[in-house]
Amino acid sequence: MRYKLIVEYDGTDYSGWQVQPNGRTVQGVLEDAAAQLFGAPVRMAAAGRTDAGVHASGQVVAFSVDNPRPIDTVLRALNALTPFDLSIRSAEVVDDEFDPRRAARSRVYRYRIWNARWRSPFWRRYAWHISQPLHADGMRTAAQLLLGEHDFSSFRAADCDAKHPVRRVVRSDIEVVDEQVIYTVEANAFLRSMVRNIVGTLVEVGTGERGLDGFAAVLAARNRTLAGDTAPSCGLCLERVSYD
Amino acid sequence: MRYKLIVEYDGTDYSGWQVQPNGRTVQGVLEDAAAQLFGAPVRMAAAGRTDAGVHASGQVVAFSVDNPRPIDTVLRALNALTPFDLSIRSAEVVDDEFDPRRAARSRVYRYRIWNARWRSPFWRRYAWHISQPLHADGMRTAAQLLLGEHDFSSFRAADCDAKHPVRRVVRSDIEVVDEQVIYTVEANAFLRSMVRNIVGTLVEVGTGERGLDGFAAVLAARNRTLAGDTAPSCGLCLERVSYD
Repeated sequence: MRYKLIVEYDGTDYSGWQVQPNGRTVQGVLEDAAAQLFGAPVRMAAAGRTDAGVHASGQVVAFSVDNPRPIDTVLRALNALTPFDLSIRSAEVVDDEFDPRRAARSRVYRYRIWNARWRSPFWRRYAWHISQPLHADGMRTAAQLLLGEHDFSSFRAADCDAKHPVRRVVRSDIEVVDEQVIYTVEANAFLRSMVRNIVGTLVEVGTGERGLDGFAAVLAARNRTLAGDTAPSCGLCLERVSYD
Repeated sequence: MRYKLIVEYDGTDYSGWQVQPNGRTVQGVLEDAAAQLFGAPVRMAAAGRTDAGVHASGQVVAFSVDNPRPIDTVLRALNALTPFDLSIRSAEVVDDEFDPRRAARSRVYRYRIWNARWRSPFWRRYAWHISQPLHADGMRTAAQLLLGEHDFSSFRAADCDAKHPVRRVVRSDIEVVDEQVIYTVEANAFLRSMVRNIVGTLVEVGTGERGLDGFAAVLAARNRTLAGDTAPSCGLCLERVSYD
């Protein structure tokens, strides 16, 4: 039987999703919990392989077992067997063929910037602190240039292993909520570090270092060396994955 | 010269406001930073002596020094000399007689309950997790019984050293925001553990263990043994202190 989970985690103390020889990972913690519950090794697949320090409120995970348990037992036991910085919001039985990554129609990521003179004790784990005032309207106009289908090579990490660099962006918005500047982006899929590279470049627009034309030129150039720095992982959260 | 600070802190790793022989306290951290800046011991006074684990987004602190520094230097240096879980939002020069506790006209506290079946990785430090569904409307009606001037002996900690138990409550509200049930209370002043004892008793109304009449009877009895358990400190935050 195959199960689908919606998982939430504070990525601060995780070395990302994917199991590594050394380092605590989300996949490792979940697979250990499932192995305890089912009494056999379990292999998990995720919709988005989040990097070290990246958070999730709606990661989608799937796994198969030979000796199924009732769905409510799975949900309760996995929550009991996982640590405080991870929580399983829901569990359901899915088709044996369900692949959370390939079947996903779109993903929503949110990036939070704490834009105030002083750091926030409450948001220090969940936002990038930028003390220089950001021009949110300029960032919003730049963000909208990303809407539609584009080659995102300029915002792609050097170690990205995707076969092609074209992605379709259906939402790319800047909101200001109190001291926060929040970037929300939805696309069919993302290249490695794509959101953090976009945010690093949008921030340069927000500070005035880069104009709107300069931002458009980065996208058009398909050249990673032209974009801004990669924004820190603490501000990023995988909010939601949608399926047909 | 006397300074007034507005201070924000994540209380998780503090043994409360007040300096203790052992234990890291907000007062201790601030006084150490000020001693480094001014090169002499500094004594700080706060509007509210928050307990261990209680947070603040608007604590008001005052202190006097013989060798004043420019206000912007004070703000920048104290932020640079304090750890990541504490931040000084503003600094101003005040009258030599200013007493942040006695001069305060009112305080606002907020208590967050995470009311969902599963714990939240993001709110675990800032909210009390209650998995049983709470009846917020019943809690709101009970909360409103506290409005006005009352003897709050039933909600007073055994070790409270206040001279009299009468306080004037001007706001006592329950809001529901997504998975959170949030209690906001404003009063001229508070007895020790008063908000947490009120919340512990309101939660009994929310679960149905105690009716509205039972809640009213607790307030009227002026007897601490009749109230509910003290709610955990992690959900409580001193939001604001107002002055004339």
